[in-house]
Amino acid sequence: MIQRLAVVGVGLLGGSVAKAARAQGLAREIVGIGRDGRRLEPALRDGALDRATTDLTTGVAGADFVVLAAPVAAIEHLLGEVWRAAPADALLTDVGSTKGGIVRAAQRLAAGRPLQFVGSHPMAGSERSGYAVARADLFHGATVIVTPSESSAPAAVKGITAFWEALGAGRILALDPDAHDRAVAAVSHLPHLVACALVDGVARFDPAAFEVAARGFRNTTRIAASDPEVWEEIFLANRDALGPTIREFLRALAELSKLIDAGDAAGLRAALARIKAQREALP
Amino acid sequence: MIQRLAVVGVGLLGGSVAKAARAQGLAREIVGIGRDGRRLEPALRDGALDRATTDLTTGVAGADFVVLAAPVAAIEHLLGEVWRAAPADALLTDVGSTKGGIVRAAQRLAAGRPLQFVGSHPMAGSERSGYAVARADLFHGATVIVTPSESSAPAAVKGITAFWEALGAGRILALDPDAHDRAVAAVSHLPHLVACALVDGVARFDPAAFEVAARGFRNTTRIAASDPEVWEEIFLANRDALGPTIREFLRALAELSKLIDAGDAAGLRAALARIKAQREALP
Repeated sequence: MIQRLAVVGVGLLGGSVAKAARAQGLAREIVGIGRDGRRLEPALRDGALDRATTDLTTGVAGADFVVLAAPVAAIEHLLGEVWRAAPADALLTDVGSTKGGIVRAAQRLAAGRPLQFVGSHPMAGSERSGYAVARADLFHGATVIVTPSESSAPAAVKGITAFWEALGAGRILALDPDAHDRAVAAVSHLPHLVACALVDGVARFDPAAFEVAARGFRNTTRIAASDPEVWEEIFLANRDALGPTIREFLRALAELSKLIDAGDAAGLRAALARIKAQREALP
Repeated sequence: MIQRLAVVGVGLLGGSVAKAARAQGLAREIVGIGRDGRRLEPALRDGALDRATTDLTTGVAGADFVVLAAPVAAIEHLLGEVWRAAPADALLTDVGSTKGGIVRAAQRLAAGRPLQFVGSHPMAGSERSGYAVARADLFHGATVIVTPSESSAPAAVKGITAFWEALGAGRILALDPDAHDRAVAAVSHLPHLVACALVDGVARFDPAAFEVAARGFRNTTRIAASDPEVWEEIFLANRDALGPTIREFLRALAELSKLIDAGDAAGLRAALARIKAQREALP
């Protein structure tokens, strides 16, 4: 049981953390921290938060569990202030989509003051953002990646893992922060970038083609309608890992294009059959 | 009311045509034609077909409405035989995903014997294939593109349009066959190719990344598990239109990559906002 849960950033993810923690009776008190007091009001009104403040130090004071759910570029920046304000025995985590930079910032801070931070990345979300789309069941059955470093205390990893399990996560994966960044570059950031390029490519080629777009195109490009600010930050935060995935994607596309240009029916069929098997083997 | 509906190829699409026509009481008799008699048995057993044959000439004889639902490469090939066997007043259509080649073949045949053919492309389907996944409601609410040429009789276009409406189509679009091929290259064949390259690219980059694949990746790559034979034929049949769409996609991707590499936050956010608006404007 958490005595005081502080949620920094009460949008889709932070709001869902608060709602799920409330629904599960996981915390005695839930405090929401945000830049804009008016945006915190709906969560106060519907009971997801007990208290709301725009002052990070006040909000985090006395908390035994702190979740940073601000945009990814803001988390690194806010971490120092959270570090100074949080009690010595607090458990800290975040929900940022990239982990290398955040975990390294936490390690630098821990060298000065030994707090327990373990990064998290719940693989759940929506192309929409904001508290209005937060849901108590957002993490139900979701995969949550936790990214302990060598200096993480086993008890802290256990506490963060138990937290996500209590919120309904279906699977907790522990990954090295850099391995995490490479993996999400491949299966999350690259597909997102490609979906954006698909929409833009079709718009350049022939906007009238959108008229005949069916379910396949809608599914493939759904994520291109996501929040530009959120994704600008993710792409930039993870650009080192993203580059090599783009290059492998381009190689794969070039090989398929070459088979098509050459009219190589047998070769193309073999490549598509291999890819079908890869897709069907997805865990 | 159709007296005798002949369906050439009783897989996902042909089977769904037969089932939907039966469900709507659209045809007095439904005849299925296929290469393999055993594969036609399930449709006979469940009453979608009244009669089944492996002989195209027998199957099409006496039909007043013929739907070619064979794989796209086979349709052009079968068209000559259908043309010779069909009654003079029959209406002919097909369900191939590319239309330029098929419509031109029909025009050549019509120069010898003036039959009424209007190409169709129902924008409905599945990554699975075969009669086992055929459904009476497959075309419900779907967009169906019809591709009349200058020589198409208005009555024929009207008859084919009415046929798809009776099967439940939500919207009928008439497009020039080449405009059709360009549009589906952009919103169907390109996204399919890209989904395949995504799966293959990630497999090359780091197969372990598949472990963390969430809903976004699954949605984006669902179509990569489609039938390799069907898609080999589609890609090759439409390669002339596909090439330019790939080039526009690559240009769009290169521009986004450049903004990311340059760390141009404002430029990247503006591009993503423009793309979000394009995606949200999808009809």
